[in-house]
Amino acid sequence: MRKLLVCLVALLLHGAVVTAAELRGTGDLGIVIERAAGSVQIVETTHRVALGRVEGLGDLSHASAVFSRDGRYAYVFGRDGGLTKVDLLERRIANRVVQAGNSIGGAISDDGSLVAVANYEPGGVKVFDAETLTPVADIPSVTLADGKRAKVVGLEDSGHRRFAFSLYEAGQTWLADLADPAHPKVERFENVGKLPYDALVTPDGRFYIAGLFGEDGLALIDLWHPEKGATHILEGYDKGEEPLPVYKMPHLEGWAEAGDLLFLPAIGRHELLVVERRDWQEVGRIPVHGQPVFAEARPDGRQVWVNFAHPDNDVVQVIDVPTLRVVDTLRPGKAVLHLEFTPRGEQVWISARDSDEVVVYDTETRTVMTRINAAKPSGIFFTARANRIGL
Amino acid sequence: MRKLLVCLVALLLHGAVVTAAELRGTGDLGIVIERAAGSVQIVETTHRVALGRVEGLGDLSHASAVFSRDGRYAYVFGRDGGLTKVDLLERRIANRVVQAGNSIGGAISDDGSLVAVANYEPGGVKVFDAETLTPVADIPSVTLADGKRAKVVGLEDSGHRRFAFSLYEAGQTWLADLADPAHPKVERFENVGKLPYDALVTPDGRFYIAGLFGEDGLALIDLWHPEKGATHILEGYDKGEEPLPVYKMPHLEGWAEAGDLLFLPAIGRHELLVVERRDWQEVGRIPVHGQPVFAEARPDGRQVWVNFAHPDNDVVQVIDVPTLRVVDTLRPGKAVLHLEFTPRGEQVWISARDSDEVVVYDTETRTVMTRINAAKPSGIFFTARANRIGL
Repeated sequence: MRKLLVCLVALLLHGAVVTAAELRGTGDLGIVIERAAGSVQIVETTHRVALGRVEGLGDLSHASAVFSRDGRYAYVFGRDGGLTKVDLLERRIANRVVQAGNSIGGAISDDGSLVAVANYEPGGVKVFDAETLTPVADIPSVTLADGKRAKVVGLEDSGHRRFAFSLYEAGQTWLADLADPAHPKVERFENVGKLPYDALVTPDGRFYIAGLFGEDGLALIDLWHPEKGATHILEGYDKGEEPLPVYKMPHLEGWAEAGDLLFLPAIGRHELLVVERRDWQEVGRIPVHGQPVFAEARPDGRQVWVNFAHPDNDVVQVIDVPTLRVVDTLRPGKAVLHLEFTPRGEQVWISARDSDEVVVYDTETRTVMTRINAAKPSGIFFTARANRIGL
Repeated sequence: MRKLLVCLVALLLHGAVVTAAELRGTGDLGIVIERAAGSVQIVETTHRVALGRVEGLGDLSHASAVFSRDGRYAYVFGRDGGLTKVDLLERRIANRVVQAGNSIGGAISDDGSLVAVANYEPGGVKVFDAETLTPVADIPSVTLADGKRAKVVGLEDSGHRRFAFSLYEAGQTWLADLADPAHPKVERFENVGKLPYDALVTPDGRFYIAGLFGEDGLALIDLWHPEKGATHILEGYDKGEEPLPVYKMPHLEGWAEAGDLLFLPAIGRHELLVVERRDWQEVGRIPVHGQPVFAEARPDGRQVWVNFAHPDNDVVQVIDVPTLRVVDTLRPGKAVLHLEFTPRGEQVWISARDSDEVVVYDTETRTVMTRINAAKPSGIFFTARANRIGL
């Protein structure tokens, strides 16, 4: 009898260890950044629930994340230079390094082997082995006369173990080829424009576009033809108009591509610029509720959802792409910071920081499917990002 | 002592059960159809290995598969009407129904809740609960004067729990809305053209295009504007030319969309047709090695890889999209039946049936990364398909 009890206890203990990491697919998982608490919630989009919380990720203001190609691990980039590898299945920190003093996001290579981080302080890009977080490359952004390093912004995967990024004070964009991480090949594009502050790569990985804070217009590089160098597009889109004060810089990675059109937040204006991708000409402007922060296309490209900077950050607007008109104005909650679509677009998840909620909408009916409690939620990231180019 | 042994045995047994289903992400998994053996191999693209085999799936000639939105389960559609739900983690059959006498593929709804199967015999579409494989809807394709059912082909997900499919003998395309599976709403497009034999939905879910075996040209339906009805495109692309005998019908789901261009296998010709998506006009033809079967775009749209019908089925050609020229001719093995890109396009997996191998290429260098033994492999399907619209 006692023997059986011992076995039972042993089995229960063993079982407990096992069930702590549930056997399940990872394709419908994601994380919600809880910026104030330094934690992430692990969420699941099939039943639209939170599965658990992982704590101890440091300063997560302006945090972002990428995913391992198997969807099991999230790499979370913290503002304090922390790079944390989170195991979504065991719901724990698998590994963590503090790799710089001040960071602004990162990317993962197309083969999933390299994680790159963009740093403000000290300025540069550090590259890590995705498996172990061992440093494999360091690319200091030394360009200024006094040997100082420029802040690195707009770091994006550009395919084939390459990363593209921009140097804020230096007005340069660099393309780093890490086919051999021990010897990174760096191609420099100088004078791309004044103060590039963020960038995007189009979903096909072809075009790198940097927003310029120091001048009107944007810098464009065709990554299929880098020999052509950087060109300017949308020059002077603000000419002769008095810009409004900028409370928050738009996020360019959020720029929406829908069919042949890109939808760009106009800095300091209550408008989205509509750009024809084939010739990069502005083909229209859409007046919106406030200063856009994220303009995200539903994966089918038929709708673009937009959130706004303070003081209009309780509103999300929905734009119908065929007619280029605002068709809905929603109020999900207080201080909407981010939105993320499920990969086929039937749901959108919206973080309302000051309501301590993530609000999930059906994108067809635009009705609320559920609300999930979260502590001051900001960024929302789903594992399907592992399959996408240019993030 | 004996007590300890008993415990040890108990634990080992328990441990064995657990390790049979390895805790892992599912984002880099896929299946390879082994048509002759009625089995599938479960493969993993990060280390490029086969993980195990699942048997007992029946007649898998012309089999295809879709995936649950969490990436854990594959739904395999067999030619014998079998619908098999395969658990990729436990590597076993989770469920199986023989739902018709003769089938030709299927689709899964955008919310992952419904699996639909296209049937030849008896003609129609059956819809199942993705969780349990319980039948939830039956849409017989009765259209012929004598009450006979037409064969159903080209069944595709068209978003929002809707499926589009075509009726071969009847020359019709139907759009079935299963928002309420108990009461499917079916919209019929009559006289779309003679003998639609397969179809595709563009990656954004907007356009349904059916190939016509009974006449030159293709039928196009804008799913954003179904009220406009079906129109014809590329009419008479073969006019005045003597078509070659057709050994194998091209697979339209394989039609490649790269940027604004579609690449279509020309039936009975050694050419790919290049079509401008904006106005559906033919803008070029690319002479190729044989009669194309699959023309697949690398996810970045910069390359299109093509395989061919007998007797040219030992060759795969690579087309450079910017120049519309064949830039490489590869010989992966004997009887190449299918090819599948990893979601970010750094690898392509190619099945060489008569070599009993799956050959994995690096798409940049076009060198062989590895070869994996498989018994008469045909279709290759990766879990990233769960995230894609229009399959």
